[in-house]
Amino acid sequence: MKAAVWYGKKDVRVMDVPEPPSPPKGWVKVKVQWCGICGSDLHEYIAGPIFIPVDKPHPLTGNTAPLILGHEFSGDVVEIGPDVTNVKVGDRVAPDACQVCWECARCRENRYSLCDKLAFTGLMTDGAFAEYVNVPAYTMYKIPDKMSYEVGAVIEPLAVAMHAIRRAPLVQGDTVVVMGAGTIGLSALMCAKAAGASKIYTIEVAKARKEYALQAGATAVLDPTETDVVKAVKDLTNGGADVVFECIGSDKTAPIAIELARSAGRVVIVGIFEKASTLNFNALSFTEKEVTGSLGYYGEFAPAIQLVSDGRIDVEPLITGKIHLDDIVGKGFEELINRKEENIKILVKPF
Amino acid sequence: MKAAVWYGKKDVRVMDVPEPPSPPKGWVKVKVQWCGICGSDLHEYIAGPIFIPVDKPHPLTGNTAPLILGHEFSGDVVEIGPDVTNVKVGDRVAPDACQVCWECARCRENRYSLCDKLAFTGLMTDGAFAEYVNVPAYTMYKIPDKMSYEVGAVIEPLAVAMHAIRRAPLVQGDTVVVMGAGTIGLSALMCAKAAGASKIYTIEVAKARKEYALQAGATAVLDPTETDVVKAVKDLTNGGADVVFECIGSDKTAPIAIELARSAGRVVIVGIFEKASTLNFNALSFTEKEVTGSLGYYGEFAPAIQLVSDGRIDVEPLITGKIHLDDIVGKGFEELINRKEENIKILVKPF
Ligand SMILES: [Zn+2]
Ligand SMILES: [Zn+2]
Ligand SMILES: [Zn+2]
Ligand SMILES: [Zn+2]
Repeated sequence: MKAAVWYGKKDVRVMDVPEPPSPPKGWVKVKVQWCGICGSDLHEYIAGPIFIPVDKPHPLTGNTAPLILGHEFSGDVVEIGPDVTNVKVGDRVAPDACQVCWECARCRENRYSLCDKLAFTGLMTDGAFAEYVNVPAYTMYKIPDKMSYEVGAVIEPLAVAMHAIRRAPLVQGDTVVVMGAGTIGLSALMCAKAAGASKIYTIEVAKARKEYALQAGATAVLDPTETDVVKAVKDLTNGGADVVFECIGSDKTAPIAIELARSAGRVVIVGIFEKASTLNFNALSFTEKEVTGSLGYYGEFAPAIQLVSDGRIDVEPLITGKIHLDDIVGKGFEELINRKEENIKILVKPF
Repeated sequence: MKAAVWYGKKDVRVMDVPEPPSPPKGWVKVKVQWCGICGSDLHEYIAGPIFIPVDKPHPLTGNTAPLILGHEFSGDVVEIGPDVTNVKVGDRVAPDACQVCWECARCRENRYSLCDKLAFTGLMTDGAFAEYVNVPAYTMYKIPDKMSYEVGAVIEPLAVAMHAIRRAPLVQGDTVVVMGAGTIGLSALMCAKAAGASKIYTIEVAKARKEYALQAGATAVLDPTETDVVKAVKDLTNGGADVVFECIGSDKTAPIAIELARSAGRVVIVGIFEKASTLNFNALSFTEKEVTGSLGYYGEFAPAIQLVSDGRIDVEPLITGKIHLDDIVGKGFEELINRKEENIKILVKPF
């Protein structure tokens, strides 16, 4: 079968690889319909290895590169291993990407994305930029008949955003700031709207993304190159937002996220950071603001599928491109590098 | 009457000042029995003005320096203004030091130490290093007959620590690290013990304070000049503590507080910081650790009095000195500067 295999930085090869064998006990084989390109895939392409194990085998999967990328996918169950009871051949699914140990302290409390041995599908074990992928049956979530495979492939990033909303926790009536209008920022904005946020301000500099944010329901978009966003948010929200989501991952924006929150407000750090920030901790001890992180998801696939399915969240506008696996480097990774602002989610068809 | 009046840095004068007038509506006059010297008093002496209003009148009280210091006190109600019903002349009290507006957003949700116009007794309005002080009746908390005035004067810092415990929130069985064994660190340690923490590790370098921590119930004291405390805590707690309290206020220790917590653990920043720290926010987004601040107290005076009164917390060991108001500079502030480690709480008698 054809697959996109990460060999090294700027070296992702579309090539023929053996189809996965019949799934072992507790596993299923999925025929991939669509798989989205994630920012983390792009990072592995541009600057990897970041999460991909290279030198020593991954503690859960034993894998090292080369590895097939891809974790935001939908598909059909085509074969089930022994003892699999939660899905059957023919089920349409949007799989969770967390493969975990179920034994560590966090797994035991079901915060499984914090597993000591987390193996993310398509980063720490073979993924879904391929015609077929074998994954554990516990990662299976069925999608309704009326949900397209394209939308099914966007459930994974939506679950990331919904997890951040639930981590805050964002409660009905809250004023909200979302920093960044990429896939996760826009998804957080849509989730916040669906959760009953009273006002949602997006911080964004890119013209195309400002438009996406307004279309997705932002009360207003604030551009730090044009406006003093801290002053603006304080004026618009009576002293600061109830909840702030940092979905950029810049050393500069994380401390600003804290500034944008009201006293005793909540800040959720969703971004991944390359550099350390400067922070005076009086920003917390003088204000009792609460800052936490959000990593992946645990349990958000089912509600994400539900809220999309019944029309409360529309993820279609996130899909800005659809390409074939053969073109993943040129029309996928390179396109995302060259036209960063215009593209949100590019989906890849493996056959 | 005699009072210790802050005129400027290194200029605290013990002098005769007029006794406060009869208290206005809703206020009471308290004859001060004992008043403790707080780290913030010492900071105002060494490096003030920090919280003391100098140039413009305080928004709630209208006061500026010179001001009488002192906020950790006990005493007797000697006169009540009109409409005061919660205390009567002769009541023995340990007053809350927060004078607030009761109108701002935080006051309306009773998080009154976060009041927009917070006026701390003895910092933003005249305090209790004096024979008499007038304070609002809503700050009154009665102490039991069997509680000494000395212990009553330590209720205020104990309430600060108890507030931090409740902010965490620390739940029964948690493993705990307390960074620092000054008044607040030791009080947090005692509160954590009384709250059912399973293990409590204190981080401290000063010899005398290590002893105080062990006497107060620390499972062990870790000294960063002798031990890799991050490694030690991880080994002792199966990967990190459930809850960490930063009670030092150093730019170096705040990021370490985050490191000391387990994944998804809680960190409470109680310290006040002079310098900014360096923090890579991946420390939160990769781990879902929760960091918050704790400022003062709201509602902790009553339970603090209760837990001391019924013997679950013994604050007597915190009292390491008792002096007369005449000696507050030499045997109080200068003593605390020169013998920082040995002294925890020095109480001052104003008559
Ligand atoms: Zn992703
Ligand atoms: Zn695990
Ligand atoms: Zn104090
Ligand atoms: Zn207020």
